Amino acid sequence: MEFNQSYPSSKKIYVGGKLYPQVQVGMREISLSSEDHHFNESGRAIKSGLGEGAHVKSYVAYDSSGPYTDEKINVDVKKGLPEIRKDWVISRNDVEFVEATIKDFKPVSGNEHLFSKKILKAKKGNNVTQLHYARKGIITPEMEYVAIRENQLRQRYLDQFQDKEREQRLKGVSFGANLPEEITAEFVREEIAAGRAIIPSNINHTELEPMIIGRNFLVKINSNIGNSAITSSIEEEVEKLVWSTHWGADTLMDLSTGNNIYETRGWILRNSPIPIGTVPIYEALERVNGKVEELNIDLFLQVLIEQAEQGVDYFTIHAGVLREYIPHTAKRITGIVSRGGAIMAKWIMAHNKENFLYTHFDRICEVMKAYDVSFSLGDGLRPGCLADANDKAQFGELKTLGELTKVAWRHDCQVMIEGPGHVPMHLIKENMDKQLEDCYEAPFYTLGPLTTDIAPAYDHITSAIGAGMIGWYGCAMLCYVTPKEHLGLPNKNDVRDGIIAYKIAAHAADVAKGNPMARVRDDLLSRARYEFRWKDQFNLSLDPEKAMEFHDETLPAEGAKSAEFCSMCGPKFCSMRISEDAKQLYTGKDAH
Amino acid sequence: MEFNQSYPSSKKIYVGGKLYPQVQVGMREISLSSEDHHFNESGRAIKSGLGEGAHVKSYVAYDSSGPYTDEKINVDVKKGLPEIRKDWVISRNDVEFVEATIKDFKPVSGNEHLFSKKILKAKKGNNVTQLHYARKGIITPEMEYVAIRENQLRQRYLDQFQDKEREQRLKGVSFGANLPEEITAEFVREEIAAGRAIIPSNINHTELEPMIIGRNFLVKINSNIGNSAITSSIEEEVEKLVWSTHWGADTLMDLSTGNNIYETRGWILRNSPIPIGTVPIYEALERVNGKVEELNIDLFLQVLIEQAEQGVDYFTIHAGVLREYIPHTAKRITGIVSRGGAIMAKWIMAHNKENFLYTHFDRICEVMKAYDVSFSLGDGLRPGCLADANDKAQFGELKTLGELTKVAWRHDCQVMIEGPGHVPMHLIKENMDKQLEDCYEAPFYTLGPLTTDIAPAYDHITSAIGAGMIGWYGCAMLCYVTPKEHLGLPNKNDVRDGIIAYKIAAHAADVAKGNPMARVRDDLLSRARYEFRWKDQFNLSLDPEKAMEFHDETLPAEGAKSAEFCSMCGPKFCSMRISEDAKQLYTGKDAH
Repeated sequence: MEFNQSYPSSKKIYVGGKLYPQVQVGMREISLSSEDHHFNESGRAIKSGLGEGAHVKSYVAYDSSGPYTDEKINVDVKKGLPEIRKDWVISRNDVEFVEATIKDFKPVSGNEHLFSKKILKAKKGNNVTQLHYARKGIITPEMEYVAIRENQLRQRYLDQFQDKEREQRLKGVSFGANLPEEITAEFVREEIAAGRAIIPSNINHTELEPMIIGRNFLVKINSNIGNSAITSSIEEEVEKLVWSTHWGADTLMDLSTGNNIYETRGWILRNSPIPIGTVPIYEALERVNGKVEELNIDLFLQVLIEQAEQGVDYFTIHAGVLREYIPHTAKRITGIVSRGGAIMAKWIMAHNKENFLYTHFDRICEVMKAYDVSFSLGDGLRPGCLADANDKAQFGELKTLGELTKVAWRHDCQVMIEGPGHVPMHLIKENMDKQLEDCYEAPFYTLGPLTTDIAPAYDHITSAIGAGMIGWYGCAMLCYVTPKEHLGLPNKNDVRDGIIAYKIAAHAADVAKGNPMARVRDDLLSRARYEFRWKDQFNLSLDPEKAMEFHDETLPAEGAKSAEFCSMCGPKFCSMRISEDAKQLYTGKDAH
Repeated sequence: MEFNQSYPSSKKIYVGGKLYPQVQVGMREISLSSEDHHFNESGRAIKSGLGEGAHVKSYVAYDSSGPYTDEKINVDVKKGLPEIRKDWVISRNDVEFVEATIKDFKPVSGNEHLFSKKILKAKKGNNVTQLHYARKGIITPEMEYVAIRENQLRQRYLDQFQDKEREQRLKGVSFGANLPEEITAEFVREEIAAGRAIIPSNINHTELEPMIIGRNFLVKINSNIGNSAITSSIEEEVEKLVWSTHWGADTLMDLSTGNNIYETRGWILRNSPIPIGTVPIYEALERVNGKVEELNIDLFLQVLIEQAEQGVDYFTIHAGVLREYIPHTAKRITGIVSRGGAIMAKWIMAHNKENFLYTHFDRICEVMKAYDVSFSLGDGLRPGCLADANDKAQFGELKTLGELTKVAWRHDCQVMIEGPGHVPMHLIKENMDKQLEDCYEAPFYTLGPLTTDIAPAYDHITSAIGAGMIGWYGCAMLCYVTPKEHLGLPNKNDVRDGIIAYKIAAHAADVAKGNPMARVRDDLLSRARYEFRWKDQFNLSLDPEKAMEFHDETLPAEGAKSAEFCSMCGPKFCSMRISEDAKQLYTGKDAH
C-alpha cells in the first residue's frame, strides 16, 4: 500500500506549545475555495445567511493521521515513526533504560530494527503516570499537546457564532459535562487529576501523538484490528492501523489471538501515532496453549510487563468478573459474550476461587504505573443481546469496576471503564448515569451499544445509533463496530465503514453536548452545499473520497463539480436558487 | 430482473379476517431449525436461558413484499398485481365508475393494459375516506387487515415473555404512546377516528395491501424513488419499487420529475402492494414548463384528480408555506431546501400573494375525500442543515400545518404531517413534542432527521441515528435517506442500504417504546446466535442474504454454518461454550 497520503486540498500544519515549544501539534488544514464567484441565474452572488465576516479560507480539522499525512516525512513502516515523545519522557528524570524481558527476538518478517528499541521504565520508587504528575500540579508536554489539539484553533472561528438567536436556539444539552470555551493545559491537568480524563501514553510508546479521553473533551472513537487463528497477516494489520488513523480512529486495539502476536504488536506500536490498547489475557492464554485453568497471576504479570515494554498504552483487564456474578449469567439468552469475561469465568469455575485479577489487583497496578499503562477496566459481563441488558450480572460488575477504580487511583494509575454492548435505546441513559455514579466519573468507553440484535451485516448502524446517544449522554470514547460484527473479521472496507459510522456518532454527540468547536464544521459544509462549492463540500466531509465518488456516479464530468445544480433536481430547477431570491427580496426586512 | 423471490427458509402464509373472511393478510413465516441438536464440547445440549416452553419452530414476520414473494402467484409487471381491494371498495356502494380524465393514454412502453383500468370515485355527496367510516363507527376490511397485520400472530410468542424480571427490566418507555397487548380492529378504528393514525388507501389503488401509520402501531418506513431529468428509466424505477418492498419499505414515494412522469407512476401503482405517495406540485410544474409563476389552483387540482384516478395513496402538499414565514428563511445557512417549499416560495414572491394551496385548501380537500387520498402535509420550510433546525420558519409552518389538519379533518380527510430534515440530537425531542401538540396528534412522518451535516455519502447513517430517536419519541413513519443523499440519485444498492438502515431505526424504536411484539425477533435471533444456529441467525435478520455473504467471506464452507465456532475466536476457544458451562454449573443455584 501507499502509506503516505493526504485527503484532497488538505495539508498538515503544526501548532506549537507555549509551555513546551517542542510540542508541535499536527492538524489538517482544509483549504476552501473562494466564496465569491458563485452566482445565481440573475447573476447575483450566492451567499448563505451568515452575514459579514463569516468568510473563512480554511478549516482546521482534528487530525489523528500522524506523520503519514505529512508530505515532509517519508514514513517507512519497516523503521517506524519518529519518536516525538522520547525527549519529553527522558527529561522528566524519573525513568531509566532497562533490559528487555524478551531478549534477542527474531521476527519472522526479518525486521529486527523494530524490536531493538531500548526499554524505558520508571526508576525504582517513581511513578510516571500522567495522573501522578497532574496530582502534583505538573503540566506535562502531553497535557499541553492535548490542550492545543482539542482547541482546534477555535479562535479562528469566533465569527461563525455571532448570531445570538441561532446560538441560543442550538445551545447544547450536556448532562453535566463541562465544556469550556477554551481548553487550557491547566484545564487538562485538572481533569486528569480528578480522574475524569486520561491520556493513554505508555512511556515506551514514544511515537505517540497524545490524545485525551474524557467527557469534557471531544468524543473519541476506537477501532479494533487483530488477526485470529483463522485469518489475516501482519502486513494486513499494519495496513488497517494506517487506514484507521487516516479515516480518523483516535485509538486502536490490537485484539490478535493467533500466531506472531508479539511481532504483530511490535509492528503496530512502532508505526502508530495513536494509543494502542490490548487485552493481555488473550496472550496469556496463548502461553498456556489455551488451557484456561493454567492461567495464574505470575504469568499474567509477565505478559503485562512484556507488553508494557513494547509500549502498549492501555490494557483491558477483566478484574470485575467476580465469582458471585457468574450465576446471574445463567438465565441470560447469550450468557457471557466477552472473551475475556468468559476466560475469567471459566478460570473461576475451574478453581472455585475468586478472579485472580481482582485478588491481585494491587500487583497489576504496580506494573501499570511503572510504564504509565492506563487501565481499561473490562466489562466481562456485558450483555450480548437486548434481553440481557442492564441485568444483575452487568451492573454488579460495574459496581466492582468502581471499587477497582479507587484502588487504581490510589496508585495514581489512569483508568477508564468499558461498557456495553447490546442495549435498547431506552436503557442507554441508565448505563451512562450508573457508570458516572458507580465509577466516580472515570471516563466511560463503550462498544456501541447496539440498539437491536436483528441486523447482522449492519451492526455498524445498529450501534451507531446507540453510540451517538451514549456519546451525547457523556460517554468519552466509542469503540467501533464494523459491518462484520458477529459474522467474521473485518477487511479494510469494513474498517472504513465502521470508523466513519463512529466518527458520525461522535461528532453528532459533540454537537448535541454543545462542544464549542463541533458545529462549525457542519456550518461550513452546509454553506458550501448551499453555495454549490462541491469540492469544498467533499473536502469538509468525513470521507471526501467516497463523497466525490458517489457524486461522480451520477454526474462524472469535472464541470459538474462547479455547476450550480446537482443530479437531484437537474439544471432546470433548483431550490437553492429560489432561496437566494427569497433572501435578496427580504434582506433588510423582517428577516429574523 | 427476477421479480418473484423470497428470502431463504421463508414462506408466505395468510391469516384470515373474522369480520371479513375475504381479508387475507400475507405474512412471512421463517422456519427455524431444531434447537435440540447443538452440543457443547462436553456433549451437553446448548440452550440459551429462556427456560421450558420457549422453543418456537418458526417466526412470523411483518411482510410488505406482497404477491412477489408468494410462490403461487406469478407476477407479471406488465399486467399488474391482483386487485384484492376491488370488491371491498365496490361493495361499500358509495363509489361509481367514472371516465378517466386522461383518455386513451398511449404509453411509450406499449403496455396499454396498465393504463386501461376503470376509475372509481365517490358518488356525489359521498365521502369514501377511512376516517369518514371510522367516525361513523364502521370497521372496514382495511381496518381489520391492518389489525391482523400489526398483531403478527403475537399469541404464538407469549411463552417468550414469561420471565417477569426480564420483562420488567426491559419495559419500554413510550412517551405517552398507547401500545395495547393486542391490536383489535376496533382499536384501529378508534385510532383512525381520533386522527392519530391513517390508512393511506386510495380507492383506485385496489392492488394495495393496507397498512397503518400512527404512533400506537409499529413504526413504518418510506422509501423514495423517482427519475429526474438527468437519469433513470421506468424499468429501473419499477425494479426499485419491487426491491423496496422486498427489503421492507412500508410505503414508497414516487418523486419523478422528468419525462414520462404519468407513465412511470402508472407502472408503479399497478405493481405496488404498498401505498404510493407523490408530490403533485412537481407534475404541475412540468405542465407549465417549469415556470413557477404560471402555477395556479385549477391546474393543481387537475393534476390532483389525474393522480387520484391513477390511485396515488397520499399527496405531499406544501400548503403551510405562508408568505409571512419566508422572510425567516433569509438568515438561514441553507435557505429553503424542500423543492416543494421552494416552488411555493417562488410563486408567493412572484405574485406577492398568499400560497394558493393554503387559500384554496378546502377545494383540495374535496378532491382528497372523493378518492381517499391522504394528506401528507409537507414541511416546505424544513431545515437543510443543523444551524437552521427548530427556527421560526420551521415552527411557524408547523403551526399552520396544525391549522390545516383541523380543516382536513372537517372534511374527514386523513392527515399526516411531514417533518425534518437536519436536526442535532438534542433538538429532536422538541420537534416531536411540538408536532404532537401543534398538530393534535396527527401522525408525524419525518425525513431522518440527519444529526450532522458532515458526512455526505453516509447520510443513511447520520439520519438513522435521528430516525431511531424520533421513532422512539413517537414519530409514526420514517422517510429513508440513502447514502447518495446530497450527492446523486440512488441506485438499487443505495436503496437497499437506505431501507435496511431505516428498518433498523424503526425496529430499535419499537423495542424502546415497548411495542409488545418488537423484541421477540431480537430474542429469537440472539438465541440462534448463542446456539450456533447460523442459518437461523441469517434468516431472522433484516437482510439474510448480506448476513450470509459476510459470514461466508471469512468461512465459506457449508460446514461452517453448522459449526459451533465462528471466525472471531476460531475453533479453539469460544465464550459461548464457557457460558454454557457456567449455566450447567449454576442452574438451580442462585441464578437470578
